Amino acid sequence: MKKNYLLTPGPTPLPAEVCEALARPIIHHRTPQFQAILKEAHEGLKYVYQTTSNVFILASSGTGAMETAVINFLSPGDTVITVEGGKFGERWTEICLAYGINCEVLKVEWGKAVDPKDIEKQLKSNPKIKAVFTTLCETSTGVVVDMQAIGAAVKDTSAILVVDAISGLGAIDLKTDAWNCDVVVSGSQKGLMLPPGLGFISVSPKAWKLSETSKCPKYYFSLKAAQKAYESTDTPWTPAIGLIIALNDAIKLMKQDGLENIFKRHNKMADATRAAMKALGLELFSPTAASDVVTAAKVPAGLDGEKLVKTMRDIHGVTIAGGQSEMKGKLIRIAHMGYIGEFDIILGISCLEKVLAQMGYKFQMGAGVKAAEEVFLK
Amino acid sequence: MKKNYLLTPGPTPLPAEVCEALARPIIHHRTPQFQAILKEAHEGLKYVYQTTSNVFILASSGTGAMETAVINFLSPGDTVITVEGGKFGERWTEICLAYGINCEVLKVEWGKAVDPKDIEKQLKSNPKIKAVFTTLCETSTGVVVDMQAIGAAVKDTSAILVVDAISGLGAIDLKTDAWNCDVVVSGSQKGLMLPPGLGFISVSPKAWKLSETSKCPKYYFSLKAAQKAYESTDTPWTPAIGLIIALNDAIKLMKQDGLENIFKRHNKMADATRAAMKALGLELFSPTAASDVVTAAKVPAGLDGEKLVKTMRDIHGVTIAGGQSEMKGKLIRIAHMGYIGEFDIILGISCLEKVLAQMGYKFQMGAGVKAAEEVFLK
Repeated sequence: MKKNYLLTPGPTPLPAEVCEALARPIIHHRTPQFQAILKEAHEGLKYVYQTTSNVFILASSGTGAMETAVINFLSPGDTVITVEGGKFGERWTEICLAYGINCEVLKVEWGKAVDPKDIEKQLKSNPKIKAVFTTLCETSTGVVVDMQAIGAAVKDTSAILVVDAISGLGAIDLKTDAWNCDVVVSGSQKGLMLPPGLGFISVSPKAWKLSETSKCPKYYFSLKAAQKAYESTDTPWTPAIGLIIALNDAIKLMKQDGLENIFKRHNKMADATRAAMKALGLELFSPTAASDVVTAAKVPAGLDGEKLVKTMRDIHGVTIAGGQSEMKGKLIRIAHMGYIGEFDIILGISCLEKVLAQMGYKFQMGAGVKAAEEVFLK
Repeated sequence: MKKNYLLTPGPTPLPAEVCEALARPIIHHRTPQFQAILKEAHEGLKYVYQTTSNVFILASSGTGAMETAVINFLSPGDTVITVEGGKFGERWTEICLAYGINCEVLKVEWGKAVDPKDIEKQLKSNPKIKAVFTTLCETSTGVVVDMQAIGAAVKDTSAILVVDAISGLGAIDLKTDAWNCDVVVSGSQKGLMLPPGLGFISVSPKAWKLSETSKCPKYYFSLKAAQKAYESTDTPWTPAIGLIIALNDAIKLMKQDGLENIFKRHNKMADATRAAMKALGLELFSPTAASDVVTAAKVPAGLDGEKLVKTMRDIHGVTIAGGQSEMKGKLIRIAHMGYIGEFDIILGISCLEKVLAQMGYKFQMGAGVKAAEEVFLK
């Protein structure tokens, strides 16, 4: 009887309401019954996105939504800026290159946030740049960027701003319209508290205009087809019906809390986690730009980071994430995103303390939990 | 308290075991726990596909799997045969054209099955043809084709045979390997008794060889990336975890019955449905090539077909399908696919009789149900 606790940056735990919705009998998608559900989902996503633009629902994971954001606006031979500060920033470059799009890569050291001024400079140096591809929260490093400032830098150029908000949407503030984010992609398995399988994408008027010149080939991910279907509250292909039904239940929960309170809760959980890491003597990977959705901390010197994560998961049932790519074995990443409460954070830190102690790391037992409790008490 | 009954050719009803699996707490995909599930799913799909080749699981609907089958094997400027006998055959042409691939369209009258000899002839007349795109069961017409004979016609040419088995797989016989089907695509919401959201694709050695020359751009649907991940029991992008977990439960049910028994059950339900249509004086849309997964019958002259379907659904809770595209309003389509039993067929026919009678159609009340019962009694 091992009880499992999920503290990973996607998938995130499912509320009981979502589990229940997923278990309902399926209904056909081309019926007034489902149309009413889809209409509610479309409206609900506008609320979460803080936009008046249409948000399209794709049957895909987040990477499919990222590809959608490349191939509907660009043509082979176009030049774009991709900001690479981690694994998911690199994915933008990979997708663009797969379609023959030239990338001016803005490399940012892992653990640091891009300086919006660097984007501004690069845009000025090459007026032919058609798009700037960014990542709201780099799941691989825990870094959050100043998207409002980036939006201000891109706004008056001819380029569109494309945001990977897969990690972050519905957990931290992202004002799609007010911050001039032209295309925002997301996924279901993070802040939206659903299983993976849905991708989302919003499109601003400026982005629609650019889409008219796009020559990349597309079919399944065609936003033109999606827009045509949207107008009659439909999807061009069979939608992931069950997940869309559950999406409405998830958004209902989010509306009950309100976005402001959700963002505050995430901020407090992040503060508590960061305080716990410091109290345990674990260095934050990104002291200057730590996000409120996932905290990355360095594994103490001499300790086997992969073993730490495995022991927490396989012996104690507490699943956190380790480092990815170049940080494999060197990081722990504790998510505080979606359907997570303060006592989930406490149990995660407690389990971390137990395994750190068993692995021979020297620290004051209970110091991490105490530090987190003090933040939550405030 | 209106009870709902689903008799549509996708989505099909969910077994209780599948509903229960969908409601389980989510787990992380990069864990030994999920790897064991994914391994079981990979093996289970080989059983359903009757193949020793790898079957890849995509987070997409069936159309995404169709696009995968085009862009991983072909290059712009290539020439292929597309067999068009309905809406889904036409989709092959649309996808190919979107990627600059030339289509020699083999038009087949709606309601008729393609003659494998016509494919053979066309292949002989143009040895440059690289692929033949076919549809096992045309959901829009209810027609099934002789895929074994088509496989024999394509086998010794340099072209690969690509089969859309979205409707049909796991419901009627399709021997992927023995019938020389190089690429078979399917989806979760039909014979596999799951919600929509998963696409499947098998790849033969002949198809892998062709893939090496493919120049269509791709990223999310790259089979090279899928194969690389498959080797370590992984997926290149976040998989639709919940649906894959439920897939194993669905395949477990299928294995308990065994494919042979499943095919027999579908055949009997189809026979009963066809007998009922005849007894009610409704002409089968495809008397010569009616499939065992969905029965299409013509709406009697003078009756409003759309109203018939709507009344069954909105007043009585029995959802069947109407005609699509050029057959809109002119057909009814009753599915007998997946988690459907003989008494589901009886209730569907009974509801059809009730609404036909209310709409003033003249027939012997009970004649359809009686004819179906007689088939089931045999």
